[in-house]
Amino acid sequence: MDTLIYAIPAAGVISLLYASLKTSWVTKQPTGTQEMTEIAGHIAEGAKAFLQREYRILIIFVVAVAALLAFANMGRTDSSWLVAVSFVIGALCSAGAGFIGMTVATKANVRTTHAARTGLAEALNVAFSGGLVMGLSVVGLGVLGLSVLFIVYSNLFDEVGRVINVISGFSLGASSIALFARVGGGIYTKAADVGADLAGKVYEGIPEDDPRNPATIADNVGDNVGDVAGMGADLFESYVGSIIGTMVLGAAFVPVFQEMGVMPTAAVLLPLVLAGVGIIVSILGSFFVKVKEGGNPQTALNTGEFGASGVMAVLSYFIITMFLPEKWELDGMTYTSQNIFFAVLIGLVSGVLIGIITEYYCSTHNKPVLGIAYQSVTGAATNIIAGLGVGMFSTGFPIIVLSIAIVASHYFAGLFGIAIAALGMLSVTGIQLAVDAYGPISDNAGGIAEMSGMPPEVRERTDTLDAVGNTTAAIGKGFAIGSAALTALALFAAFMQQANISSIDISHPVIMAGLLIGAMLPFVFSAMAMGAVGRAARDMITEVGRQFREIKGLREGTAKAEYAKCVDISTKAALREMILPGLMGVFVPVIVGFTSKDMLGGLLAGVTSSGVLMAIFQSNAGGAWDNAKKRIEGKLEIDGVMYGKGSDVHKAAVVGDTVGDPFKDTSGPSLNILMKLIAVVALVIAPLL
Amino acid sequence: MDTLIYAIPAAGVISLLYASLKTSWVTKQPTGTQEMTEIAGHIAEGAKAFLQREYRILIIFVVAVAALLAFANMGRTDSSWLVAVSFVIGALCSAGAGFIGMTVATKANVRTTHAARTGLAEALNVAFSGGLVMGLSVVGLGVLGLSVLFIVYSNLFDEVGRVINVISGFSLGASSIALFARVGGGIYTKAADVGADLAGKVYEGIPEDDPRNPATIADNVGDNVGDVAGMGADLFESYVGSIIGTMVLGAAFVPVFQEMGVMPTAAVLLPLVLAGVGIIVSILGSFFVKVKEGGNPQTALNTGEFGASGVMAVLSYFIITMFLPEKWELDGMTYTSQNIFFAVLIGLVSGVLIGIITEYYCSTHNKPVLGIAYQSVTGAATNIIAGLGVGMFSTGFPIIVLSIAIVASHYFAGLFGIAIAALGMLSVTGIQLAVDAYGPISDNAGGIAEMSGMPPEVRERTDTLDAVGNTTAAIGKGFAIGSAALTALALFAAFMQQANISSIDISHPVIMAGLLIGAMLPFVFSAMAMGAVGRAARDMITEVGRQFREIKGLREGTAKAEYAKCVDISTKAALREMILPGLMGVFVPVIVGFTSKDMLGGLLAGVTSSGVLMAIFQSNAGGAWDNAKKRIEGKLEIDGVMYGKGSDVHKAAVVGDTVGDPFKDTSGPSLNILMKLIAVVALVIAPLL
Repeated sequence: MDTLIYAIPAAGVISLLYASLKTSWVTKQPTGTQEMTEIAGHIAEGAKAFLQREYRILIIFVVAVAALLAFANMGRTDSSWLVAVSFVIGALCSAGAGFIGMTVATKANVRTTHAARTGLAEALNVAFSGGLVMGLSVVGLGVLGLSVLFIVYSNLFDEVGRVINVISGFSLGASSIALFARVGGGIYTKAADVGADLAGKVYEGIPEDDPRNPATIADNVGDNVGDVAGMGADLFESYVGSIIGTMVLGAAFVPVFQEMGVMPTAAVLLPLVLAGVGIIVSILGSFFVKVKEGGNPQTALNTGEFGASGVMAVLSYFIITMFLPEKWELDGMTYTSQNIFFAVLIGLVSGVLIGIITEYYCSTHNKPVLGIAYQSVTGAATNIIAGLGVGMFSTGFPIIVLSIAIVASHYFAGLFGIAIAALGMLSVTGIQLAVDAYGPISDNAGGIAEMSGMPPEVRERTDTLDAVGNTTAAIGKGFAIGSAALTALALFAAFMQQANISSIDISHPVIMAGLLIGAMLPFVFSAMAMGAVGRAARDMITEVGRQFREIKGLREGTAKAEYAKCVDISTKAALREMILPGLMGVFVPVIVGFTSKDMLGGLLAGVTSSGVLMAIFQSNAGGAWDNAKKRIEGKLEIDGVMYGKGSDVHKAAVVGDTVGDPFKDTSGPSLNILMKLIAVVALVIAPLL
Repeated sequence: MDTLIYAIPAAGVISLLYASLKTSWVTKQPTGTQEMTEIAGHIAEGAKAFLQREYRILIIFVVAVAALLAFANMGRTDSSWLVAVSFVIGALCSAGAGFIGMTVATKANVRTTHAARTGLAEALNVAFSGGLVMGLSVVGLGVLGLSVLFIVYSNLFDEVGRVINVISGFSLGASSIALFARVGGGIYTKAADVGADLAGKVYEGIPEDDPRNPATIADNVGDNVGDVAGMGADLFESYVGSIIGTMVLGAAFVPVFQEMGVMPTAAVLLPLVLAGVGIIVSILGSFFVKVKEGGNPQTALNTGEFGASGVMAVLSYFIITMFLPEKWELDGMTYTSQNIFFAVLIGLVSGVLIGIITEYYCSTHNKPVLGIAYQSVTGAATNIIAGLGVGMFSTGFPIIVLSIAIVASHYFAGLFGIAIAALGMLSVTGIQLAVDAYGPISDNAGGIAEMSGMPPEVRERTDTLDAVGNTTAAIGKGFAIGSAALTALALFAAFMQQANISSIDISHPVIMAGLLIGAMLPFVFSAMAMGAVGRAARDMITEVGRQFREIKGLREGTAKAEYAKCVDISTKAALREMILPGLMGVFVPVIVGFTSKDMLGGLLAGVTSSGVLMAIFQSNAGGAWDNAKKRIEGKLEIDGVMYGKGSDVHKAAVVGDTVGDPFKDTSGPSLNILMKLIAVVALVIAPLL
């Protein structure tokens, strides 16, 4: 059975090989006209430049934290300083996955546009292939990095507990990069988006979604650095976090299994094995994403994604029952392999449910979005009130699903059950992420079609892809939040195990204070992120205005805008503004933890509960506002009057959409990472407390 | 010392007597011109009609819950059914305080307008006297009701624990009425306010703040039923809740004191004694609220309020050290009377601090509000983003103050310390509430001045009073939220004591699920409240439009608007929409509690943490938006351009103000009550679990 340990990195390698195969296929596709190629070149260049500058800053952070980690563990004779090595490798893998994914996405966008000149099926194929590279890079590097570290450390340490302890640094590396990438990318993309939109309002006659708008390239770059690289880093860390959380909790079974004569590390390896199999299933699932001309890309994506989930569920059953003993006991609780499978299943099902609920609240066809559209008749204020209401209300059912998932998976398999449920949700991350990343690629493809003046049928095809992308993005966000919550809980449980805390009594005032402070962090963090977007958008608007004033012929389309200036504003703002919230996420738990580890326990509970709620609220409100606007753009009859683009009702809806932008793409999704990061920091510093 | 028990209701009686003295003084003041008297008549009539209809619905609720309570306690031989009696009396006292306060407020408004024709000092005197009646009715009925019940029950039961258990129904009665009153009043006032404001935008040529606008009377009625009666019910229940929470926790000292030979119920009576003394101090403080013509009413109100707080702090020291033994021990903790005084002091100081922080974020002169004003240059969207950011960011410091207060007061005197800190914050509620209620009275006075066409200097004086009212309202809200959080925690601790729960381990999945569900409630509750305002405002807008279309001469000012129709819309909407969120607050904890009392524990922690944050966020965002608009109305130079009323920047700021309306006056303040109500429900059902 020990050779199996080497099969896991093999799955990671397969993933990366297949990704590189897809990359070269995408690269080989034609880029279309010279104008298209040129525009795409600007976007790719801007994106690459941003990522390079971002990573240059993050290197300082990574080196500093690695040094701190090594220093803090210096006095110990047990090689704990290796946690610093894991941290660096985790950070590198996360950054690498982001870089690969974004590079391919910036190639796939223009090629999708070109393919759309031929047909929908061709365009979907290119866009999805681009997304698949991102998805497979994330899971490939995650599984490869973790399993190689596990093999190396297992040869160094006899005790599995030590191995796991040191390996948790990998997750910390992934989380830190993710937080900066999400926040930085989120600020970048929304500064450009909001700036470009509002410039059209502030200065009369400046087109909003038009190639003449100097912020438009920055806007497209933003999609790549925010929605592709940011989302990738986000899911990379959820993926890695849930694997490590499960490994930590699985380590508790080692002595029991040893006594029973089965492989002692079975429960520790199980998450890696499931992840490895999930990679293969994701690749197989990707073959089913095909659409005919006139067909619905949504169906194709669903077939791939849900098909893979179904297959994964069945395979999990066989893997778990084969891998684990039928029945064992620990601390008075009886575990069975069957029950552990149920926990995985609960994770998968509740992930899908949360996705469906999210889709309900954000879809153009349902009551919530229609309600926002109706409330826009009386102006921006009622549109905003309605959207905030929808966002807040939409927290109800996902939280109930999540609560049931927590209680049920714990009922079946204790804390290990919660951890492996998170893993179940994320087992086919490969294809889920492909479906997610497909969205911004299609969005970009549409933008390029518009800027290069393609005929309407091309734009129509990219619009079809893009519309589907909005729905998949909503579902993906639901998944990301649900899995983040479960992962945070798994890490929370792992922290308690590592810190030797047996209970966190919320009626104890220090813990209550921790709970309040923890619950406050997502609010302050969101405020920082939104403030950053607001400030950067203002700079962008000023710059756009300057170009329209100073560049002669820009308005008429005879002169070129200075796109690079706007790219530069977004880049600088994102890099400057990501620092403070990022550091907050890393250092608040350290400060609180060294004050009182009980308070840190309360803080984790607070940040998780309030973080999940704020994330759902903001993501869904943003999604609903966006689609309410889209709904009106597609003509909507209210009280017998027909409203469309340009009407006052549409203008009110645009205000909501603009407010929703930083909600759904900057602060909201960053909270996923914040709660996991804080839990991981707690886990890593636990042995020092 | 036993005669002292009878001195406490005497303080309540004094309070009510002084309130009736003030009432007759206010009533004796002249009401000015016939037009003024008429307008004021409409307002008073509308307010009274609403309250009567509201109470008619609440009677059904009160009878039903009382029957349920009696029925649930039927099988028990210990007269637990008396909890139903306490419940009914609590509900009656709360409703009574609201009714008295509002009746006087609707008399004081027009008399303030008339007094403003003479001078600022006279106007302040009338407005503040009106507010004082509200304040003294609340504390008077609270202390009187509680102390009489205590005396009666003490004669029935030998054991103090039983007395307290039965008396907790009083708090439940107060909380239920408060929730309905706050939500109903909040919906009423904002439906009218938002409706009146937006009607001006939707239908061209309809004046926003003008007597010709048919919603204007409803708007003024709303100030009375929302900001006076609603705020009164809110603080009535905080006041009562903190007293009862402290009594429950003080009951633990009875056996110790008995053994020491001091009065056994000393710690149980202490909160009532402090409350009684607080009444006298409040009355004395009210004598210092005087202003000269041209003087600053803020200074006068501060002298009264903070002077009373200071005197109360000094008196508390003597009362506590005289009343309690110098030193005693329980469960390994040493208590001293000195330390208990410190806990009270912590409560007082942190209340003031939270008030000051709130004022910082909402004041027209500070960076946060100015930031929102600047962001309005680029339109409504950036105004909204900025306001949401300010609201979210503003949660930071109050939460830190609150956390320190919790940890410090617990350090000094255990859970009893937290409870008595809440009481310390609320000890001079009499005058605090007077200062709060003074605001809407002045606001109304201004409205009446405008509608009756008073000369500008009158409007100027009422505006001066009103501006100060905005600041005092912000500080009052800070106090209300801080005390609500501490009270909820005290009730939480009391619940654990009554339910025999020794710890609430948040790492237990059932409790974690409870925490998540609890944290979700404030979001869903806020969504319901905002949705209600949105819907009601739409009806209002439609009705205003109809009147302007159908009533000839209304626009020209030659015909009268049908004010009663708008009053009716607000009334019906408020009564219809308050039911669901109100019932949610009462029944969710019951359902969860009978499912699992551990989960209920988690729910309490969740609703408290998320409730405090959402309350601060919404209140401060609303206050900041309001003042950003006011700041622009008072002319503001941004980037060298001067903006004022009617400019595009002002229009953007109006959107923010409108969004902020339900935030700060409907959903935000209702959350205070929600968290206390849920805690009280838990406390009352604790013996049944």
